[in-house]
Amino acid sequence: MAPGKRLLNLETMNQAVLHVRVPVQGSVSARAVEMQKEINQGIIKPFRSITKCHYADPQAMGHKPRTFLRQVVALCTYPDLLDTDHFAEDAKHRAREILKKLDNGSVGSYNPNFIGRVMPPKIAKFIEQRDGGVPSDPRHIIVTGGTSKAVLNVLALVVNEEEPLKTGIVVPVPHYPLYSDAIALFGATKVEYVLDEEHGWAVNVDRIRESLRTARKHCNPKVLCVLNPGNPTGHVLSRDNIEEIIRLAAEENLLLFADEVYQENVFAPGSVFHSLKKVLFEMGPEYSDRVQLVSIYSISKGISGECGLRSGYIEFVNVEQAVFRHFDILKSFDIPSIIAVLALEVLVDPPQPGDPSYETFQAEAQNRLSSQLEKARLAEEMLNRDPGIRCSPIQGALYAFPCIQIPERAISLAQEQGQAPDVFFCHLLLEETGILVDGTSFGQEKGTSHFRISLLHPLEELKSILEKIVEFHKKFHREYS
Amino acid sequence: MAPGKRLLNLETMNQAVLHVRVPVQGSVSARAVEMQKEINQGIIKPFRSITKCHYADPQAMGHKPRTFLRQVVALCTYPDLLDTDHFAEDAKHRAREILKKLDNGSVGSYNPNFIGRVMPPKIAKFIEQRDGGVPSDPRHIIVTGGTSKAVLNVLALVVNEEEPLKTGIVVPVPHYPLYSDAIALFGATKVEYVLDEEHGWAVNVDRIRESLRTARKHCNPKVLCVLNPGNPTGHVLSRDNIEEIIRLAAEENLLLFADEVYQENVFAPGSVFHSLKKVLFEMGPEYSDRVQLVSIYSISKGISGECGLRSGYIEFVNVEQAVFRHFDILKSFDIPSIIAVLALEVLVDPPQPGDPSYETFQAEAQNRLSSQLEKARLAEEMLNRDPGIRCSPIQGALYAFPCIQIPERAISLAQEQGQAPDVFFCHLLLEETGILVDGTSFGQEKGTSHFRISLLHPLEELKSILEKIVEFHKKFHREYS
Repeated sequence: MAPGKRLLNLETMNQAVLHVRVPVQGSVSARAVEMQKEINQGIIKPFRSITKCHYADPQAMGHKPRTFLRQVVALCTYPDLLDTDHFAEDAKHRAREILKKLDNGSVGSYNPNFIGRVMPPKIAKFIEQRDGGVPSDPRHIIVTGGTSKAVLNVLALVVNEEEPLKTGIVVPVPHYPLYSDAIALFGATKVEYVLDEEHGWAVNVDRIRESLRTARKHCNPKVLCVLNPGNPTGHVLSRDNIEEIIRLAAEENLLLFADEVYQENVFAPGSVFHSLKKVLFEMGPEYSDRVQLVSIYSISKGISGECGLRSGYIEFVNVEQAVFRHFDILKSFDIPSIIAVLALEVLVDPPQPGDPSYETFQAEAQNRLSSQLEKARLAEEMLNRDPGIRCSPIQGALYAFPCIQIPERAISLAQEQGQAPDVFFCHLLLEETGILVDGTSFGQEKGTSHFRISLLHPLEELKSILEKIVEFHKKFHREYS
Repeated sequence: MAPGKRLLNLETMNQAVLHVRVPVQGSVSARAVEMQKEINQGIIKPFRSITKCHYADPQAMGHKPRTFLRQVVALCTYPDLLDTDHFAEDAKHRAREILKKLDNGSVGSYNPNFIGRVMPPKIAKFIEQRDGGVPSDPRHIIVTGGTSKAVLNVLALVVNEEEPLKTGIVVPVPHYPLYSDAIALFGATKVEYVLDEEHGWAVNVDRIRESLRTARKHCNPKVLCVLNPGNPTGHVLSRDNIEEIIRLAAEENLLLFADEVYQENVFAPGSVFHSLKKVLFEMGPEYSDRVQLVSIYSISKGISGECGLRSGYIEFVNVEQAVFRHFDILKSFDIPSIIAVLALEVLVDPPQPGDPSYETFQAEAQNRLSSQLEKARLAEEMLNRDPGIRCSPIQGALYAFPCIQIPERAISLAQEQGQAPDVFFCHLLLEETGILVDGTSFGQEKGTSHFRISLLHPLEELKSILEKIVEFHKKFHREYS
């Protein structure tokens, strides 16, 4: 039997998987990995290492973890430390309280009770405070092992292959590619609506209606995804815009999927995060009794950026208990790490005024937000100085997503190489400067070119990165015009 | 619009999910949850709490975590502790080494390099030592976020819905129900082979051949699952038996899925764990160049029982790089918690002779294994004293799976209540003694009745549990005969 005839091969494997890309790994990222290898092998480049600006990993880029959170986690992991004096008293107190609720006081147990019964009421309280008192039902909250798995599990619940038409998932353009990949994996149909870049990346509901009209000829649109704050766009939706979206979801009978993982990363003066749920309930029972909503939260983003730990939660609204129960079953394949759940515990129930760790905990948040604002302003300013680059105001999240002019000759060359013009640009930028940013992975309005850059490097470093990008873009423009 | 007409409801949701149960949660478990609530509400029962013997959560049942492992994890989580004197020097050294390899020295980063490049060679070395030098290729090893997700991801790769026949997954009876649930979720077809209880739960390859013959009329069997040591059966496969299985897989062109998560839990004198991979390679290139094999490992089992942390690995053999690459993509939806990966790091690269923590680390393992042996002997002995119970020799894993006689009248009563006879027995046992064990979730040979009991409670407690079970079974037998 030849090796090619082995049972599992490219022809026999799940064909849907072939359509899934590695998240945040386009061809530019792959080239960056090769280049780093070349550098390690001693090949001389105009730079000493790759500058990764293609993804948001705050702690990898120098952000400090939050002291109280890490103290609680370390204490719970190794409780002998409770007898030492290296920790704030409230961290010790919190760790003791948590250990009492863990099965046999151990993070090494599955702890279904802690994950499934202790956490949801705490999360519900957190949501109620966030939403000015709008009630949250702990029975409809599930702790997850991270955003990717949350998205997969929601799709696993919604995509019904026994129906004659494929399930349509309506997503904004641009969007974080996780959605495209998950849709491909489930063999669902992606239905796109283009965000209105001219108006601060607002959601134009007429465009969604138009997309739906066309889509309904060949699929059954069920879910409308809204990313607020936006990734990669860094916009924050206005309250009015959210009302429009909710009215549309009600009229078109769509389940709203609110990716609100950047809810704590809102820093622009005048920008406020309104959760879709809060607005839904403020619109009254005509909407709040009807519209189905799923909202996700992650410890990877926000102020803490604990990407390595892997946890978050999902809140369901207006999903009947029987359906929810089945989601719970799906979720049982994705038991989160209890260590990550402890981090979530701290974030939804942070130190209070008067607690020894309160000042530090607050200061860490304030510093982070003012630093994010400073970096966003710097990016807007520096990028917009180049007449060939247009960066919309950045109100939240961790990225800039500037629109770049690509000269005609570069577009033709890109076409010859089978590349999108912005991917062509990103490749050249990488080769010349070592700066890794990502192009069309996110999708964009036809005929435009963009890249996403994460704004997480220390300020001075970011300034130098932006300088190099602008300088390179000008040169690129000259060369290919 | 009536609430029943909301978009997502029981009729519109993914119908495959309706066939999935909550793992380890049959009707008996559900009743136990109710009963615990009743006890909490003050309702008087003949016992003060539910004695959970239906699942294996070593630390919840009193097992101590391994000191070195927890020290390393605590130090990496809160590196300020490196300057204190509460830790073994080798734990500090290990933590420093790990922190050097983490992105920016933080467990809060995604750390794709640590998970994807630092860990696989370490795991490969561990596997090579385990298998007496049989080579292991780090490029074919993937760190996972736990067994459930590993099983799901392998099925996600293998089940190809574009083929005319459904994908068949061949599983032993009895088996840990995760497999049935995952098969249901993917809409694959379960093909069963009954283990030979009379011969220590050996795999009878003729029975598999017969199952395949029948199954091939309606599905395309692709994967043969082998659980070694067995769950729920506690058997350890002999080397000869493994050879037979491999020959069968070669002849029938099946991918072998080796669930070897209990590989360190082998304690019976004379029993040795042979990995399927080791035997495959010892059978020579005729087999080792051809037979495709996937093997899983978990930190939840073994000596350490770190169920709460969630990690493990998968090793692929004879799966071509292009296919493997796609598995890697699937896996990118399941980023494990880096904390759990650190625990895995310690387990595949434990303290060595001469290291300060070596003696303790070894003693912890020896104590655990001798205690497991003692409990297994106790269970066999006490259960077999009852002529109506037959417990096969327990060689490994963490369970007993005794065969019990159910009197005719009880069988009729069970039928009237729509219950399997052993579920009927488990319900009554629970109501009368508060002891929770699980019946037919695992499947069994037609006409037989069994239950699974985990052997994790402290010895004296286990003795009292077993006494109560035997006493109850005798009474049950008298009452219904």
